[in-house]
Formats: sequence, structure tokens, C-alpha cells
Amino acid sequence: MGAAAGYIMEALKSASWIRKMFEEGIRLKGQYGEDNVYDFSLGNPDVPPPPEVGRALAAFAETTSKPMSIGYMPNAGYSSLREALARKLASEQKVSLAGKDIIVTCGAAGGLNAFFKAVLDPGDEVIAPSPYFVEYATYVSNHNGVFKSAPTKPGTYELDLEAIEAALTEKTRVVLINTPNNPTGQIYSEDQIKQLGELLGSRKPGGRPIFLCSDEPYRFLAFDGAVVPPVLSHYEFSVVANSFSKSLSLAGERVGFLALNPDMEDQAGLMAGLILANRCLGYVNAPSIGQRIVEQALGAQADVSIYDRRRKAMAEVLDAAGINYPTPKGAFYFFPDAPGGDDVEFCRALQEERILAVPGRGFGCSGAFRLAFCVEEKVIRNSAESFVKATARFK
Amino acid sequence: MGAAAGYIMEALKSASWIRKMFEEGIRLKGQYGEDNVYDFSLGNPDVPPPPEVGRALAAFAETTSKPMSIGYMPNAGYSSLREALARKLASEQKVSLAGKDIIVTCGAAGGLNAFFKAVLDPGDEVIAPSPYFVEYATYVSNHNGVFKSAPTKPGTYELDLEAIEAALTEKTRVVLINTPNNPTGQIYSEDQIKQLGELLGSRKPGGRPIFLCSDEPYRFLAFDGAVVPPVLSHYEFSVVANSFSKSLSLAGERVGFLALNPDMEDQAGLMAGLILANRCLGYVNAPSIGQRIVEQALGAQADVSIYDRRRKAMAEVLDAAGINYPTPKGAFYFFPDAPGGDDVEFCRALQEERILAVPGRGFGCSGAFRLAFCVEEKVIRNSAESFVKATARFK
Repeated sequence: MGAAAGYIMEALKSASWIRKMFEEGIRLKGQYGEDNVYDFSLGNPDVPPPPEVGRALAAFAETTSKPMSIGYMPNAGYSSLREALARKLASEQKVSLAGKDIIVTCGAAGGLNAFFKAVLDPGDEVIAPSPYFVEYATYVSNHNGVFKSAPTKPGTYELDLEAIEAALTEKTRVVLINTPNNPTGQIYSEDQIKQLGELLGSRKPGGRPIFLCSDEPYRFLAFDGAVVPPVLSHYEFSVVANSFSKSLSLAGERVGFLALNPDMEDQAGLMAGLILANRCLGYVNAPSIGQRIVEQALGAQADVSIYDRRRKAMAEVLDAAGINYPTPKGAFYFFPDAPGGDDVEFCRALQEERILAVPGRGFGCSGAFRLAFCVEEKVIRNSAESFVKATARFK
Repeated sequence: MGAAAGYIMEALKSASWIRKMFEEGIRLKGQYGEDNVYDFSLGNPDVPPPPEVGRALAAFAETTSKPMSIGYMPNAGYSSLREALARKLASEQKVSLAGKDIIVTCGAAGGLNAFFKAVLDPGDEVIAPSPYFVEYATYVSNHNGVFKSAPTKPGTYELDLEAIEAALTEKTRVVLINTPNNPTGQIYSEDQIKQLGELLGSRKPGGRPIFLCSDEPYRFLAFDGAVVPPVLSHYEFSVVANSFSKSLSLAGERVGFLALNPDMEDQAGLMAGLILANRCLGYVNAPSIGQRIVEQALGAQADVSIYDRRRKAMAEVLDAAGINYPTPKGAFYFFPDAPGGDDVEFCRALQEERILAVPGRGFGCSGAFRLAFCVEEKVIRNSAESFVKATARFK
């Protein structure tokens, strides 16, 4: 009998599409050479961190000979960072925020896990609009919750409030949105957020509120002047998760945060639960050095114009191949319709042309596929011919 | 109804003794001044990181303008660090190790959580000798396991193999030891480890092996020439957890690792499960910058002689007060007998004399109390009179 637990063996068998593509990518690159494979499978930002990051690190290096320089701090993070985040968030979220409303976490992923640990009782349900970031379902099941999805509007991937309403049950505890969206690039409008808040506020299944949790790691990345609307100002039981993985290209250092609506009933109780969850899940606290960097580099961000040029390049490549897509308003993904209609079959055809993409069913949404454009512009442009060839098979 | 889940509200009510002391410490320090409170409640190393840490950080700061400098890496950590750790561990653990046998984790706490996630099916039992680090029980219940303790030998706190044998059931999945031990300072002998391996190897409840997991964050801190014996060379299904929180005074940056016995049946399956667990629990990977530092500073460690001087000072203070204790062989804790026999009552008396200590029942072991000597030597010496006064009440 194997060493790992039964359920983890099952999970390994159904390893994610993203992981499969990652492994296929390594194989293809070995066979054809790094430059001859067009890898759009991973959301790993290749834009360098802004110079503020290196400067903050160099300055911090000079202080490490002090005792406790990299020691434990309160489980919620350095107070000065919590306060700085509160000031930044207050203007984004249009509410008055203080340090006590923020907990610094091990990336947004660690923040979401701490949140689910703190609010889910066994069997409680979390609803996310599909397509959704595939790890959400695991984060929910980690804490004995049940993950459910509700469709978005076909073609545009805007929120479908009726579909969300239809998915609500007596066990619903959280509605989890991701805006700007991975994988669609959609930004939910302020009107939609407001209406969603009204819908959730009208329900108290089992006497408990339904939380609205907005996961926003791509908030900094909106194109054509699009504005990502606030969430905290539109609903009492709202929580924002975010990270600096994309905005400061710090993905490996794992610094993110949760912000709670300050006007939430028993907000202090929830924050105490989050701090306990952060500690007892073994994060203990977000990484110390990352926290120091983020505090110094909070006004900076990775160069958005680079992403915008790549978005244009990718649109031209897709247009030339006759592939349909909703233009992404934010984030660094396209989610085009799969020519022929079968996303897995089309991704296989792409693979044969040395293009790596992820089938939409990996995001709970068949018939489309995801392209991550956080790769050099020349990789995008060089892939044009391969897209044309793969598409030609389905005409 | 409160915002947090029912079970987390319960957990908040029974907040740990260490946390209670932490809060009491803040109150007392506010009342009497920082220098007039003798705080031995927290294991937060105050010895500065060795100079290699600052140097590694400064050198790394110069490379952050490169793409992906702080990006995602494989979920198991940087290969070069895994290989460097394998070389270091091979000599400590007396087995041949390669990078594939190591996973870098978000501290030892993150490593233990990933391990329990990977091996526990619901209801599986984990046995730890008492006294034990109080968070272990939470790490087990996080993953639907059941935590059980087995006593150690009275007075010496050595392993009691008969007590462990008596605690084994059909559901036992892991025996978790901590050596050098927090809170007792005991180092389990090579003979004891060997016999424990033989005992566990003779059982396969439900056809599954029982893992022996050794949590060793204090391995570097052994006194009077004591040697912490290897574990991996003594038992097939053995796993070592460790961190750099204490050895490099990096507690806030959260870098640790798990090492698996390379000869374990289906070892690759367990490693795959651990990597998946590391990702899906939201750690994703151990913090990138911390990993870079650890790789450069792997040969260094915090100054052990400082801790040894403090240990001697603390022994003198306790001797002068007539308090009995087993001399700690490693780690930075004393676990003396509580004068009068009631640990909570004695800790209250200490508190009235402005000394903060943690009652033994916080570690599953009444009648003794823990003193962390990771504070300046003068704090230890200045506390002498207060110890005498508190003890006098129980004579």
C-alpha cells in the first residue's frame, strides 16, 4: 500500500491541466529547444520587479545584524505594513480602513485558506462563478467545505446574478469572485458588484450572513482606462484578498493580505479567527522579508505598458488565425473560443504545433481555452504561424 | 450570530497559554516598564542572524532586476537548495540523500501541515510523547486527524517506549517526536530512536506503515558536547522536519524542510503527495528570498555559546531559588518542577513577581512549567530575586 493517504493519491491521479501542460512543456522544450516552444500555460509574471524592490532589499540587508530583524512578529503581520495597506486600500475600496482591518498573509492563496478555515463549518458551501481559478475548489475542500460553481454569461463572462441566486442554498457561506478574472480577463462592473451585494444581503441562511470574497491579484492590471470597482463599499460582509505576486512580480515570496469591511457585524471576531487560522495552518505569519519589501515598494508596480503591448500582439495573432475571443479588460489572460468547440482537442492540436495552452475545462468551463500572455512579446509574435496551422485543422 | 465558524469560535475561547502569557506580558510591561518584567514565555530567538544572512541578502538584492528573480519556482523549492540540504542532511542523518528526498517548506510548521495533509485519512491518529509543542494537536486536527499523547519518563522526560506501544491502535498513522525537545530540552538517545524504529516497524495497522516524524528545529543547539542522533538511518518510514527559524534566527521568514528516508517504500509517491499538499494548502512554495538566503548561509548558525551562557545563568537562578529541573541537553528551554506541584498556581505567583512562564499543562504535562532562555543574560540574572520570592510562598 502506498505511503500517501488515500484521498491524496486520488488527487494526484487527477493532477491539474495546468500541471500537465507544465510537464508537457518541459518535454517539448527539451525536444525542440526553448525558443521553439510557445508556452502560454503558466501565470508566472516574467516582468522584473520594479527597482523599488531591489532598493528595499539592499537597505534591509544592512539592518539584519540587529536582534529579531527577521524574527517572529504578530501573526497578523507588521503593524506598520498593515497600516500602510489600510491607507492604500481605503482609496481603492472607498471605505475608511485602519491597520486592524487588514491581515497580511502568505500570498492570496494563504489568505483564502485562512479565510475558509475561519468561516467554514463542515459542509458549508462556497460558490464561485465559472470559469474560475482551479485551486479554489481545493482551498475549500481543505477546510471541509463544498465547492460549487455558477455559470457566467456566455460569450462575455460577465456575472450572471440569476445563476448565482439559483445556486444559493441553506448551506451557502461564501460567494467568491475573482476580478479582474483569471482566466477570462473580465472585470465585473460596479453595478454588478452592487447588485450581488444586495442579493447576498437579502439572505441569511441558517441565520448566518453570506460572505462576498473578492480575490483581486490583478487589480493593478486593467487596460484601456478600465477601472476595477470597489467591493468593500458595496456589501457589509465583504472581504478582499490580494497579493503582490503579480503587481510587484514577487510571486515566489508569498506576500498577500485580506481586508475586511470595517462595518461588518462582529468584524473583530472574524479578524481574531483569521489570525488564529493564519497561525495554526502553519503559515504563522507572512514572510518577514517580503513584508519589509512590500511596505517600501507599495507605491510601485510592474510596468503595465509591457503587458498592454503583449495583449495587443496576442489579439493580432488570434485575429490572424480567425480565433474568436472576448477582449480581456484586465489580468494577463485570453480565454478564446476553441475552434471546433472541443477545448481539449484544440489544445492537443496547439500542442502538436508547439503551443502550450490550458483547456477551459481546467477552469470549469469547456469549449474555450486559456492563454497566459506573461511571456515576451516575440514569443507571442513567433507563435502566429503555429496558431494558423492548428486552427486550419478545424475549418 | 458571529462571523467566524463555530469551531473557530471555540478555539478562540481556549486560546493557548503561550498567547495568554504574551498578552499578560504586554500589560505588565506597560505597567512596570520593559526592563522590570522578566519574560521567559516566548521561543522567539533574540540572537541576531549570523553575518552570512545579511551578506546573502545584499548580494541577492543586486540581482532582483532580472525577470523571475522572485518568481514562482517548482513547488518543492529551488533545486540547488534541495541539493545543498541533501548534502548537509546526509551527514547529520547518516543516509545517502539527494535533492529529490527534500521538500522546502514554509517553516517546519508548514512542513508538518503538508505532511499531515499528505498522509492522514480522516480519523487517523498521530501520537506524540508529552510534553509536546502545543500546536501539534492543531496541525493534526487541521487535516481531520486525531491527536493523542503518550507520557515520557517522569523526571527525565526520556522516551517511554512502553507508553508509546500502549498508545498504538489500528488507526495509528504517525508517531511524532521533537528532539531536542521543546519544552523539556531532552535529547532522545540513539538507542531510544533505534528501539522506537523497531517497535513501529513491527506494526502495520490496516496494512499501512506507521511513520516516524522527527521535528528537529533545535538540532543545532546541543550543550556539553551532546550529539543529536540521526533518525532516518534507523527506520524505513521516517521523515525529518526542520527549519532555520532558530539556527539562523530567521523565524519570521518561514523557511524549513522535510527530508524523507530515501529507502522508504513508495517514497516517490509520498514526495508527490507532499508537493501537492504544499501547493494546495496555499503555501505554494517556501518564500523565495528566504530560500536564497538559506542556501548561502547553510554553513553558518546563530552563536550557540550565547545560549550556553544563558543556560548556565538560568540554572544558577533556579538553584538559588531551590527549584528542581532536569538540565536541558539542547534547545533553549528549562522545564522545572513547579514548587507546590500546581503549575498554573505557581505561574500565577511568578507573574505577581513580574516573571512570565508557561504552565506545563499548555504542553500536555501538569506539574512543571516552561522557561524560554532566548532572552538577554542580564534579564535572566535580574530575575533571581523574583524567583526566590515566588518560590518562598510554596515552602
